[in-house]
Amino acid sequence: MIEAPYLLFLGDAPDPLAAKVAQGIRDWRPDFAKAQFRLAGCKADMGLPDMTMAEAVAAGIKTIVIGVANRGGMIAPDWIAALREGLEAGMDIASGLHNLLTDEGELVAAAQVNGRTLHDVRIPTVAYPIANGKRRTGKRVLAVGTDCSVGKMYTAIALEREMLARGMKATFRATGQTGILITGGGVPLDAVIADFMAGAVEYLTPDNDADHWDIIEGQGSLFHPSYSGVTMALIHGGQPDALILAHEPSRTHMRGLPHQSLPTLEQLRETALVLAKVVNPDCVVTGVSVNTASMTESEALEYLAALEIKTGLACVDPYRQGAGRLVDGLMDV
Amino acid sequence: MIEAPYLLFLGDAPDPLAAKVAQGIRDWRPDFAKAQFRLAGCKADMGLPDMTMAEAVAAGIKTIVIGVANRGGMIAPDWIAALREGLEAGMDIASGLHNLLTDEGELVAAAQVNGRTLHDVRIPTVAYPIANGKRRTGKRVLAVGTDCSVGKMYTAIALEREMLARGMKATFRATGQTGILITGGGVPLDAVIADFMAGAVEYLTPDNDADHWDIIEGQGSLFHPSYSGVTMALIHGGQPDALILAHEPSRTHMRGLPHQSLPTLEQLRETALVLAKVVNPDCVVTGVSVNTASMTESEALEYLAALEIKTGLACVDPYRQGAGRLVDGLMDV
Repeated sequence: MIEAPYLLFLGDAPDPLAAKVAQGIRDWRPDFAKAQFRLAGCKADMGLPDMTMAEAVAAGIKTIVIGVANRGGMIAPDWIAALREGLEAGMDIASGLHNLLTDEGELVAAAQVNGRTLHDVRIPTVAYPIANGKRRTGKRVLAVGTDCSVGKMYTAIALEREMLARGMKATFRATGQTGILITGGGVPLDAVIADFMAGAVEYLTPDNDADHWDIIEGQGSLFHPSYSGVTMALIHGGQPDALILAHEPSRTHMRGLPHQSLPTLEQLRETALVLAKVVNPDCVVTGVSVNTASMTESEALEYLAALEIKTGLACVDPYRQGAGRLVDGLMDV
Repeated sequence: MIEAPYLLFLGDAPDPLAAKVAQGIRDWRPDFAKAQFRLAGCKADMGLPDMTMAEAVAAGIKTIVIGVANRGGMIAPDWIAALREGLEAGMDIASGLHNLLTDEGELVAAAQVNGRTLHDVRIPTVAYPIANGKRRTGKRVLAVGTDCSVGKMYTAIALEREMLARGMKATFRATGQTGILITGGGVPLDAVIADFMAGAVEYLTPDNDADHWDIIEGQGSLFHPSYSGVTMALIHGGQPDALILAHEPSRTHMRGLPHQSLPTLEQLRETALVLAKVVNPDCVVTGVSVNTASMTESEALEYLAALEIKTGLACVDPYRQGAGRLVDGLMDV
């Protein structure tokens, strides 16, 4: 686990979008996001106090989180001096970037000398078990998408926020780098060895109170040829009681694959449910989460209303409408 | 690629079953299996000439293949002296065991000094790409099982043998350690990082002649919670033109999971075909390969005849009957 609270490291972000990890933490874990650190030329701003490394430590901050991705997702040489200073001041560092903190000799040395930890959340640090498929106590919900990057993580975190607001027991379970940095823990599923994927998801969502919900971050899509194996492991390792379908209506082809068409929501529903019932015969599909960012408000409402009639399920854009009706759909599960 | 021919290292095999890798090479690649090497107390015998390391080199043998697995699948301390002698005599070593040749200091040193190669086929040595799902030329067939260990590898190698006997262009593509040792190459899919599984299968089965068949070794089962993600990656990375269903009728539960029931062949057929059509809309199910080892000859024939009526597909035990009718089913694909 990554120790909170965080200093969000924005580096020399060329634009606000480059700081989307920081934005995610700011939006979803405001208690963790105490301050930000910017280098000259930084074009992102989380609206948090700017602090030096020393100020951050004095304010009780435990970890510098790399909240920015430059081109290529690499740790930039220009960042090293500031990050080293942070280690020397007494903070850990967490990063989800492609090159590793632990491959940067200067940072490794500074961490060792100062007794600090470098968290590379892109790589697993746990020897996950092979999945056993045994039923666990507690409830689990998983969003499965018609494609990658259709809003599955957003849906999951919005569900958690809504459940907690209602006084329900709920935990967002991160399975990707951004989710792990937002919550401080999880499983970097796309980097796990094939044989241990489903076991890693079982490890992430163990036995729990009967009225507790694990809200598992989805990955990939059963219909996306590059990543479908990861999705499959989430379904079987997660043994969901409920599936929420996630969709982005403006897609004309699968993400990154111009030749590959999308499945219909009905195909996704049928296929995912058959596979989920392998590990949880009671699994049900309870709603549809639609990313309507490409539509106007009225277009979105019209689309959702029509889809609701077609599917017989609550169809919601949690960004526009909140996750309330998606949580309603889970109350009888 | 592992250089043939092989010296099959049987070590101190406690019984014939412990040498099943050697037996597989003996059965399916007799040209590779030139000789065997046994230590005192060895209870396995491939019926090959026993050779010393020096004799093997003199006979043109290139690689010692560890054809035995003792309890735990580990390289035994008692083997080291003989293996080192083999390296010094001029042969490489290949192993699919859990502990690695490259973790045995004495072997690593001897390999370096003598310019030899240690092949640990349990771990990938290639940086596989992320799958792109693009259609490739040539034809591909994949066996998918109702469970793990129902005869998928046997089916694939039997298909290759039958196709080659008919003068067809065909290549068995190994995806597991035993298959890799039998054929000298392949992808150890269960050890590949999640994000690259499907890409590894694409890498293994590239563009080929229009009338060439890649016969892809199946792994796991879409219905086996521990390994279904690997199966999923095989289906999407392999983009099969044809699926053969593999089944073992005596199973009362999924292998290793006493609480987990098996799917019906019909469930397997429907689910696998929907997913295969994502990458290859023309994919068809062409036959059923049944492992009838638990039945008498007449029971097996009765079972297969009844199953054939029920499924409308050629239902064959390739061990008893050969793979001829399974290949017949592929001729119109």
